[in-house]
Amino acid sequence: MSDTPAGGGAGTRRRGRPPRTESADTRDRILVAAREEFSEHGYEKTSVRGIAKAAGVDSALVHHYFGTKEQIFEAAIAVAFAPTLNAPAAIADGPLDGVGERLTRFIFGIWENPTTRKPLLAIVRSAVNNETAAAVFRRLVAAQLLRRLAEQLGHPDGELRAELAAAQLVGCAMLRYVIKLEPLASADLEQIVARIAPVVQGHLTGP
Amino acid sequence: MSDTPAGGGAGTRRRGRPPRTESADTRDRILVAAREEFSEHGYEKTSVRGIAKAAGVDSALVHHYFGTKEQIFEAAIAVAFAPTLNAPAAIADGPLDGVGERLTRFIFGIWENPTTRKPLLAIVRSAVNNETAAAVFRRLVAAQLLRRLAEQLGHPDGELRAELAAAQLVGCAMLRYVIKLEPLASADLEQIVARIAPVVQGHLTGP
Repeated sequence: MSDTPAGGGAGTRRRGRPPRTESADTRDRILVAAREEFSEHGYEKTSVRGIAKAAGVDSALVHHYFGTKEQIFEAAIAVAFAPTLNAPAAIADGPLDGVGERLTRFIFGIWENPTTRKPLLAIVRSAVNNETAAAVFRRLVAAQLLRRLAEQLGHPDGELRAELAAAQLVGCAMLRYVIKLEPLASADLEQIVARIAPVVQGHLTGP
Repeated sequence: MSDTPAGGGAGTRRRGRPPRTESADTRDRILVAAREEFSEHGYEKTSVRGIAKAAGVDSALVHHYFGTKEQIFEAAIAVAFAPTLNAPAAIADGPLDGVGERLTRFIFGIWENPTTRKPLLAIVRSAVNNETAAAVFRRLVAAQLLRRLAEQLGHPDGELRAELAAAQLVGCAMLRYVIKLEPLASADLEQIVARIAPVVQGHLTGP
C-alpha cells in the first residue's frame, strides 16, 4: 500500500503521510479491521479469520503480529481508547478545583464526536457481554486511566474516588448515548456539564 | 403441573402455592424459560423456538400467549424488573431529604442479591447490544420508573433529575457488578452508600 523506507519517490507516496514500512502498514490495516469487526459483531462473534479477511491478509499474519484474539482485542481497543487515556494529562493542566469540569468536558467531548464514540461504544458493548473483554477493559481503564487520575489527586482513597467519578460519567454516557433515554439524550450538553461537573469534582476532591 | 380450579384435592396440589389454571402455569413456565434464555444468550441470539423448547411447549403456544420475540422480551423483563419498578413506592415513604439514601439503598439492595441481580444483568446486556431491547428498556424504565420518581419530586425538570441520579446508580452498578473494577467491586457497601446517596439526593432535590 505504501513505500518501503528504501522505496520509490514522491509520486508513488501516499499523500500527507510519511513513508512507512510495509509491515507497519499491514499491522495498521489489521488493527483497523479488528476495530471494525469488534465494533460490528462484538467480542464473542468476532473471529481472527474474519479480521484477516477484512484486512485482506492471511490469519497466520494476524496471529504473527498480535497473537491471540484477546491480544488483538487489547491492541485494537488500546488504539480506540487512546483519546480517553489522555484524560489524566489533559486534566492535569490547571488548578485542582477545576478538575471536575475539565474531566467532564473531556469525556463528553469524546462521546459527542461520532468518530471517537463508535470505538468506545464497541468496547463498552464487548466488556458488558464478555468476561475476557471485561478483563481487558479493566486492565486498560484501571491501570492506565483511573490509577493515573488517582495519583494526581494524592488522596489515600484516590482510586475509589476516581471510580465513583467515572461511574457518574459512564452512567451518563450509557443512558444518553447507548440507551438514549429522554430527556437526557437530547439535553443540551452545557446543561449536563453544569450538573455533572460538580458531582465529579465532589467525588475527586470532596471531603 | 398444577390443579385446574375445579381440579383435585390437597394431595396433588403443589405445596405453598394456590391452585391455578393450567394456562397460567404454562404462561409462567414460558416466562421463566424466556428469562433464562435471554439471560444466557442475550436478545439477539435468543429464539422463540429456543424458549419454547426450554419451556417444553410448542413455538405456536409461545406466540399465542405473548406474540413476537420483542413482546416476549418485554413480558420477561417486566417480571425481572418488577423489584426495581417498586422503587418509587419504596422511596415515597418518608421525608424528601432522605430520598437519595432510600433510593440508593433500594437499588443496591437489588444488585447485591444474586437472585435479583441476574435478570437485571441480562436486561442491561441486551439493552446495550440491541436497539429493540434498548427500546423496551426505555419504555419500562422511563415510563414506569423514572417518570413516577420525577412526579414525586414536583420539579419542572424532574425527569432529567431522575435520569442523572439514575446515571450515577447505573454507572456504579456497571463498574461494580458488571466490569468488576477494583477497588469499587470489593468496597464495603456502606462506604459506597455514604458517597453515592448525597449525589443522588443532590440530583433529585438540589438547587
